[in-house]
Amino acid sequence: MTTGKNYIGNLLSSTGKKTFKTFNPQTNIENETVFTEASLVEIEKAVELASEAFNTFKSIPGEKKSEFLNEIANQILELGNELIEMYSSETGLPAGRAEGERGRTVFQLRSFANLVKEGSWVEATIDTADENRQPIPKVDIRKMLLPLGPVVVFGASNFPLAYSTAGGDTAAAFAAGCPVIIKSHPMHAGTGELVASAIIKAAEITGMPNGVFSNLNSSGIEVGEVLVKHPSVKAVGFTGSIRGGRALYDLAAKRPEPIPVFAEMGSVNPVIILPNSAKLKGDFWAKLYAGSITLGSGQFCTNPGLILGIKSVDLDNFIKKLSEEIIKIEPSCMLHPNIIGAYESNKAKMLEQKGLHTAAAVNNDVSKNYGRQIVTTVEGATFLENSTLHQEVFGPFSMVVQCENKAQLEEIISKLEGQLTGTILAENELENYPAIISALQNRVGRIIFNGVPTGVEVCPAMVHGGPYPASTDSRFTAVGTNSIKRWVRPFSYQSWPNSLLPAELKNENPLNIIRYVDGEPTKNPIK
Amino acid sequence: MTTGKNYIGNLLSSTGKKTFKTFNPQTNIENETVFTEASLVEIEKAVELASEAFNTFKSIPGEKKSEFLNEIANQILELGNELIEMYSSETGLPAGRAEGERGRTVFQLRSFANLVKEGSWVEATIDTADENRQPIPKVDIRKMLLPLGPVVVFGASNFPLAYSTAGGDTAAAFAAGCPVIIKSHPMHAGTGELVASAIIKAAEITGMPNGVFSNLNSSGIEVGEVLVKHPSVKAVGFTGSIRGGRALYDLAAKRPEPIPVFAEMGSVNPVIILPNSAKLKGDFWAKLYAGSITLGSGQFCTNPGLILGIKSVDLDNFIKKLSEEIIKIEPSCMLHPNIIGAYESNKAKMLEQKGLHTAAAVNNDVSKNYGRQIVTTVEGATFLENSTLHQEVFGPFSMVVQCENKAQLEEIISKLEGQLTGTILAENELENYPAIISALQNRVGRIIFNGVPTGVEVCPAMVHGGPYPASTDSRFTAVGTNSIKRWVRPFSYQSWPNSLLPAELKNENPLNIIRYVDGEPTKNPIK
Repeated sequence: MTTGKNYIGNLLSSTGKKTFKTFNPQTNIENETVFTEASLVEIEKAVELASEAFNTFKSIPGEKKSEFLNEIANQILELGNELIEMYSSETGLPAGRAEGERGRTVFQLRSFANLVKEGSWVEATIDTADENRQPIPKVDIRKMLLPLGPVVVFGASNFPLAYSTAGGDTAAAFAAGCPVIIKSHPMHAGTGELVASAIIKAAEITGMPNGVFSNLNSSGIEVGEVLVKHPSVKAVGFTGSIRGGRALYDLAAKRPEPIPVFAEMGSVNPVIILPNSAKLKGDFWAKLYAGSITLGSGQFCTNPGLILGIKSVDLDNFIKKLSEEIIKIEPSCMLHPNIIGAYESNKAKMLEQKGLHTAAAVNNDVSKNYGRQIVTTVEGATFLENSTLHQEVFGPFSMVVQCENKAQLEEIISKLEGQLTGTILAENELENYPAIISALQNRVGRIIFNGVPTGVEVCPAMVHGGPYPASTDSRFTAVGTNSIKRWVRPFSYQSWPNSLLPAELKNENPLNIIRYVDGEPTKNPIK
Repeated sequence: MTTGKNYIGNLLSSTGKKTFKTFNPQTNIENETVFTEASLVEIEKAVELASEAFNTFKSIPGEKKSEFLNEIANQILELGNELIEMYSSETGLPAGRAEGERGRTVFQLRSFANLVKEGSWVEATIDTADENRQPIPKVDIRKMLLPLGPVVVFGASNFPLAYSTAGGDTAAAFAAGCPVIIKSHPMHAGTGELVASAIIKAAEITGMPNGVFSNLNSSGIEVGEVLVKHPSVKAVGFTGSIRGGRALYDLAAKRPEPIPVFAEMGSVNPVIILPNSAKLKGDFWAKLYAGSITLGSGQFCTNPGLILGIKSVDLDNFIKKLSEEIIKIEPSCMLHPNIIGAYESNKAKMLEQKGLHTAAAVNNDVSKNYGRQIVTTVEGATFLENSTLHQEVFGPFSMVVQCENKAQLEEIISKLEGQLTGTILAENELENYPAIISALQNRVGRIIFNGVPTGVEVCPAMVHGGPYPASTDSRFTAVGTNSIKRWVRPFSYQSWPNSLLPAELKNENPLNIIRYVDGEPTKNPIK
């Protein structure tokens, strides 16, 4: 059951005055629960509790953090159908998608639980002393990763479960040992509250300190701003628009003590279809890409918004086939009237650009709040001249750029902004395009061969991030277990007494983790 | 021989109009060489060459990068006594210090050469495909670290060799695969040019692309500003003052595409002397700390500028002994009239603060540009009230804070700004101060037991960095082989053909590096 209140640590609270409701885009009416935006006093209390909680949570054993994470997953599953129904009522997305995303969320939580239970993730590194070294003796130095402190996570509009309340950012921060304060996304505040209740239950069951988690409602930008400016907040996670992410980054950079903001933002995810591929597999890819462009009404950060090819009859055929396939697909409901409003206006702005042509579009009436997909085309030279054409249109929109030749294709790639992904479709020709691959590599975080960019595997080798504005710091990933690195810092102990070292660094290696001892990875104890 | 020119890639160039000379603080006269500040055209050319060089340098094998780094070390040694004499003439530091720092510089270069020759540093991570996974097949994803692009390194005033032209930042950036543009420090532009000539020679001998390195002279802030704002520059390394580092950080954060600035800045390096230690070892530590405070005329970033103890007869005795010892030490020459000018004025500002007392000070006349050491004392409550007392005085200055009790000591620690190091001196009592240790841990990057903070070992377990303002990003270290992480980003290949993968990720593991394959570290090839 949702109350519309905030969780300030373990307690429900609603002392604020500003209220709002969520919206069901399928039925086009507001949902019932009245949510109360967090007040300044509640924000202050949440941060204070988080700071206090950090003092114990930062050194809780990995095994206990693992229990907490697994229990969050259990409690989310315990919410059962109430969660699925709430999710659908606040997003217009079908139950199948809700269940899939819940599965991903649970998988992420359990992945991090396994990571911290095993324990080697702390990168324990030990350089032993050498009293006989000349000209001066060498001291004993031992390093491991420690959590940064309280982390603020902004819920994402397009992933109410997997990148919101108990999503990837939160799971990684808890795993690192950082308390989390959620700035709940106003479009799915009910889903957020349900998940928050699961986290609070899990924290209580597994004996976590009060304040390890808070969930703050907010319909505007104020709550987020206050949080990001707060001196006790030490890092920020965000998934959303470039404008939103950049605003938070700027706020954090202007603080007396700047803090890292890891924002995963927009991307058009360029796809390059090489000549042989267009010739031999054009129809195959056209069908697959029609699906990828319209998946979830195009509301994925890895949605393929830009397809690049070299002019040929085969490319024309690919565009024709893509056009045929994409209009066969039933339009689907978008997340919120504001999202579809932005989609329609961004689409209209694109269509005003000189030289942009519509290859295929659903123009007939569709249900209210449904996203009508469109494929457009443009000449390479026109694309190069007009940077508006490089921008993302969030929704089921894609643009095929018809390049004159290989050189123009390479130039276009090198002039793109930073991207999450880049895809190359090729048939026995990839080795002929080293400059294209090199240019694409400079612009993206993940490069895909003969596939679609949608679908982001949660695994250690995943990079979900990339050069700005795909993310604010390309040195980190937002997806996969390595995303824990965003919330930690290395810390050295010099000549520290063995009995007082953390377990990870003790001579005996009681946790039996892999450590780098004098340069070599080993589980052996130190003699 | 120094020419006073810039290296724009491999060529000496001086098209600019602004000139300057370096200064010998021992003789108190200017050195002869006239240096020409880099012009806008030269800056542009250096960045353009670096961008071009990046396209090949980014994928040069580790073995070749290793040859380059080792050859730089060789060429620096080849400079022989000319380098040592130039160093001393531009810093006032003795030949022994110059030789020691050269040794450190060479050791750093060879450490990175070994790191990239071995190759496992790229954190190769492979998650193999599973076509039978339900509900959807798992794709093959392989990740490794790739260089960011051209890096700008600012030379440090206090380490003309180890943290300047071919210092830690440069060595790490080259090792990562990033071209380097040096903003040479104006106080030791001649030392910088000699080292730059060694790098250029090494680049030519080992066949590195032109533009992999440039050395730009500059007497003001303009050259650095233009570099940090340049769209083709992808990261910045800096060692110096908080004001300078913060200015660069702010510039970089305001760019259309923000870039990481890793600045290692000020620190007072708190030292906590616990009661038993003051009682049993007070005299021993007093003597050692008198040396540590005055080492290199106090011009180290790990200089112990703040000593914290709990009031007692033993602490009084420690202060007395420290005072006796420190005035026995001969004052030594500081780096530059500007540095000693800042030291004297910052010291005077401190001495104006209410409640700060001088315990011991060299007040007699000393040679021109020599730094007169001083030890001051202050009550804990006074220190808490006045944040001016928390600031660094760069030079042979230290302050002993006399705390009322354990609680006040803990409060003071928790209110300090971020620090590079924290030291605890203790005799069988450390286990009684868990809150002190915990608070100190939150404020520093390295914690030292029964030692002095000066002396920063170059090894994998070293952390030289810490919460702001010790550094601008506590998630990285500036010293040790792990400092390479500042200049790289993770990158994923999805379903990429084995023949076109970089050697680090190929099935065969031709480089025989340690890789994480499906979660386990191994050198085994993929079947």
